[in-house]
Amino acid sequence: MLLYNSRVSGNCYKVRLLLAHLGVPYERRELDVVDRSNRPDVLGGLNPALRVPTLVLDDGRALAESGAILWYFGEGTRFVPQDRLDRARVLQWMFFEQYEAEPTLAVARFLIAYSQLPRAEYEKRLPRLWEGGKKALGAMDLHLGTGRDWFVGDGPTLADFALYGYAHCCEEGEFELGRYPSVTAWLDRVAALPGHVPMAA
Amino acid sequence: MLLYNSRVSGNCYKVRLLLAHLGVPYERRELDVVDRSNRPDVLGGLNPALRVPTLVLDDGRALAESGAILWYFGEGTRFVPQDRLDRARVLQWMFFEQYEAEPTLAVARFLIAYSQLPRAEYEKRLPRLWEGGKKALGAMDLHLGTGRDWFVGDGPTLADFALYGYAHCCEEGEFELGRYPSVTAWLDRVAALPGHVPMAA
Repeated sequence: MLLYNSRVSGNCYKVRLLLAHLGVPYERRELDVVDRSNRPDVLGGLNPALRVPTLVLDDGRALAESGAILWYFGEGTRFVPQDRLDRARVLQWMFFEQYEAEPTLAVARFLIAYSQLPRAEYEKRLPRLWEGGKKALGAMDLHLGTGRDWFVGDGPTLADFALYGYAHCCEEGEFELGRYPSVTAWLDRVAALPGHVPMAA
Repeated sequence: MLLYNSRVSGNCYKVRLLLAHLGVPYERRELDVVDRSNRPDVLGGLNPALRVPTLVLDDGRALAESGAILWYFGEGTRFVPQDRLDRARVLQWMFFEQYEAEPTLAVARFLIAYSQLPRAEYEKRLPRLWEGGKKALGAMDLHLGTGRDWFVGDGPTLADFALYGYAHCCEEGEFELGRYPSVTAWLDRVAALPGHVPMAA
């Protein structure tokens, strides 16, 4: 099994984190997140969005989108609840992550820390990204602040891994985690899980 | 069961379309998509993102994000495949839709056709939205152009309903469907399904 990967992509990290918890072996092939010129050659026919992560199974069939890859491996494990509504709520937070958190937290982080662009070139985009990212972190903090240890149910699920991907490194996008004490406590909880691997692993 | 709804929201329409196909009865409560000032009062405690659709089950428990609501009702029906990889691929296209298609097709459409703003106020945002939307429509057209009638497998799935929501009305955002013949044929196929309801229903 082959994972087209980027070391610095939170979307790829979510997948690596789950596979580490599940003990699933795989190979990685690293793609550049700044120079994307080889994407059509490498990912064409595998992933219509030409993004990482893209997974190729041993039989050659491909799967894309971090949330779908998480679901593929997570279904039937302790990280996807048995209860139908809880299962849908795991997806609720995964869709929330891709719609509200990723396009703000990840993009601000990418521009500031990885794009290699002079700040003047993207500075005007930052206020909108910060506003959206704060809204997402605020919603997460509010949810966790009602006495929850995890986003859905009583234990870690795919929702926690999905949200952890970019929340744990959002300070690289100049967000202040100190403003979100419930998020901070939850990040520590995820990182303390047996089998946890850091993004750089 | 109560659906917080907007008549013009493609995200709400996806849910109404599936519920129509499944024959599930529900009540609707209409929320304004331009004046969102009452959202915290109405949706606070139900949906951390304060968006529609938000569903409240008869026992009072809430579920948000169109993709998660689709999954809640779709699991176990003919619209979610039995095969594990196909099931994940349905989610792949649903995540693709929320990440690549919705933020471009829906936002251009909203600004142009529903925001009630003078064009000068949002005109500078349009080129980026059009570029992203064309990329999404192009990827959909390429996928369907390989001889597929439906996005995953041999029949309609949640992926088709999710993608239909904003693709079918993208010309309101000044996209040209004529450039995407496979998408156009697929849109006709979805609309011809027994039990189909239009957005205005």
